Amino acid sequence: MQDLAVYSILLEKEIAQIDFPKTPSNLYDPLRYFMQLGGKRMRPVLTFLGAELFGLKKEEVLNAALSVEVFHNFTLIHDDIMDEAPLRRAKETVHTKWNHNIAILSGDVLFVKAYQLLAKQDPKHLAELLHVFNRTAQEVCEGQQMDMDFESRSDVSIDEYVEMIRLKTSVLLGCALELGAIVAEASTEDRQHLYDFGQHLGIAFQIQDDILDLYADPEKFGKQVGGDVISNKKTLLNLKAKELANPVQRELLSQLETEQDLILKVSKTRDLFSDIGAREACEVEMQKHYDFAMNSLKQINVADQNKLSLIALADFVMQRDN
Amino acid sequence: MQDLAVYSILLEKEIAQIDFPKTPSNLYDPLRYFMQLGGKRMRPVLTFLGAELFGLKKEEVLNAALSVEVFHNFTLIHDDIMDEAPLRRAKETVHTKWNHNIAILSGDVLFVKAYQLLAKQDPKHLAELLHVFNRTAQEVCEGQQMDMDFESRSDVSIDEYVEMIRLKTSVLLGCALELGAIVAEASTEDRQHLYDFGQHLGIAFQIQDDILDLYADPEKFGKQVGGDVISNKKTLLNLKAKELANPVQRELLSQLETEQDLILKVSKTRDLFSDIGAREACEVEMQKHYDFAMNSLKQINVADQNKLSLIALADFVMQRDN
Repeated sequence: MQDLAVYSILLEKEIAQIDFPKTPSNLYDPLRYFMQLGGKRMRPVLTFLGAELFGLKKEEVLNAALSVEVFHNFTLIHDDIMDEAPLRRAKETVHTKWNHNIAILSGDVLFVKAYQLLAKQDPKHLAELLHVFNRTAQEVCEGQQMDMDFESRSDVSIDEYVEMIRLKTSVLLGCALELGAIVAEASTEDRQHLYDFGQHLGIAFQIQDDILDLYADPEKFGKQVGGDVISNKKTLLNLKAKELANPVQRELLSQLETEQDLILKVSKTRDLFSDIGAREACEVEMQKHYDFAMNSLKQINVADQNKLSLIALADFVMQRDN
Repeated sequence: MQDLAVYSILLEKEIAQIDFPKTPSNLYDPLRYFMQLGGKRMRPVLTFLGAELFGLKKEEVLNAALSVEVFHNFTLIHDDIMDEAPLRRAKETVHTKWNHNIAILSGDVLFVKAYQLLAKQDPKHLAELLHVFNRTAQEVCEGQQMDMDFESRSDVSIDEYVEMIRLKTSVLLGCALELGAIVAEASTEDRQHLYDFGQHLGIAFQIQDDILDLYADPEKFGKQVGGDVISNKKTLLNLKAKELANPVQRELLSQLETEQDLILKVSKTRDLFSDIGAREACEVEMQKHYDFAMNSLKQINVADQNKLSLIALADFVMQRDN
């Protein structure tokens, strides 16, 4: 996708220009470091696309776009503490490079920065921008809490799992798009359709993440294939497998959870998940959300031509192999 | 002060009515718990007083007032993690009663709640409310970081210390007042004077805290007298003592830091600080900020009668013995 690359370059430049005070350096150095670690910058691109869909130039929503990216990075800094993650994008996380307290506090001040950027948009849109942004921020926290709660539960349902990924990651994609549409002064109906498009594309994206984690081509996949299986993580694949397995298969699944030979564990689980039909079931679930997303996009009351970038983005998301 | 008590009762009722969702309970139960721990609710009272100073009813700024109180509680939850504090208002802190991750995340979502409450004010004031609120939130984080940085430094200057308490605690008092003035549509000059009043009264209040910690009447003081001395905390008293001590006194101060008999340590330090003139120097510093505050209040362009509540508040703050 040509567009995405062009937008990403613009965004990297703008992100590099977000100014943090020099002192206290223990508060702001971690933010300068973390905001430069890169990433796809997909969320602010969505805000651009949400505005352009309704004929508004991306420059008009730059601060809202940056706000979403900054908020996302705040959540990553705090999530990394909670997940005890040593690395983020192959670099040390803030709490590893500095310490826990600094990661908590620099995350907090980054969250403030997100609001400061949002507040740079025209005051006439501020109440609506804040309404969507606040609700989304709250939901993202709820999703993270559900994810943490799931670790110690053995009775997570598929509906709960999908609700968790919706809150933890997908609502922010819907929000990113809708902020662009708010500034473009789109109708309430169109805003809702666009939000739904983003939200359901996000769920499809996350389910694909689960599938790729086990079925990706190791040569193209950026991470270790089977990482979720090795850590016995509850993913949609795992939950679908448990749901669909017959008693013998369920026993095998249970045995594989304690298998010490990790290469064997991954390959046997992969074959078993396929035999059970878990992979296929996940693909059906993914397709359902993808279709919902595309149908929502279809209902937006603008010329089809304006939708091409979002369609290209959706294709890009669904055809990725890493 | 009659007024403060009346306002506090109203606020307790409103705070009890802030609604948090039922689930995820690990996210919201800590907030229901923490918001009910009480406290003086001084900050939201200030927002009421800031509005009333300009003839606006307190009901018109209720959401802004609650927003400030909620924000303050968010900072307490995160500060308690960073300070490893087991108790807050004689009850378990969130990270002790639940765990660190829950304290981080429920703090985050409480911060969102503060913005949600602020956003309930009339949209026409939102940009200005946000401007002051965001700047203050950022400064409070900076103050907390400075406070943490000071723990491992032996060269903290008195100016740095005053700047730290200004950021960590006093700007929020100025902000609380100014939010009320913004909704009351006070002039820019009057808003600034009111902010300065709150900020400098806050600094005076904090310096008095330092003094009371060592010189309070144990029968009236809520905490252990001399707690700061026992933990060798850098307070204004401590910094002034080091600044003013002669070489012999400085050596005595240094010896007292490692004194094992804590009762002796406190009483000897108290006498030494008085001999050195540290207590008096702190009182001079406190008076300076109190005078600045009262002078700022004087310059506000409203009838003297409207200022009586704020004058009573200032008297109350300065004459307290606990």
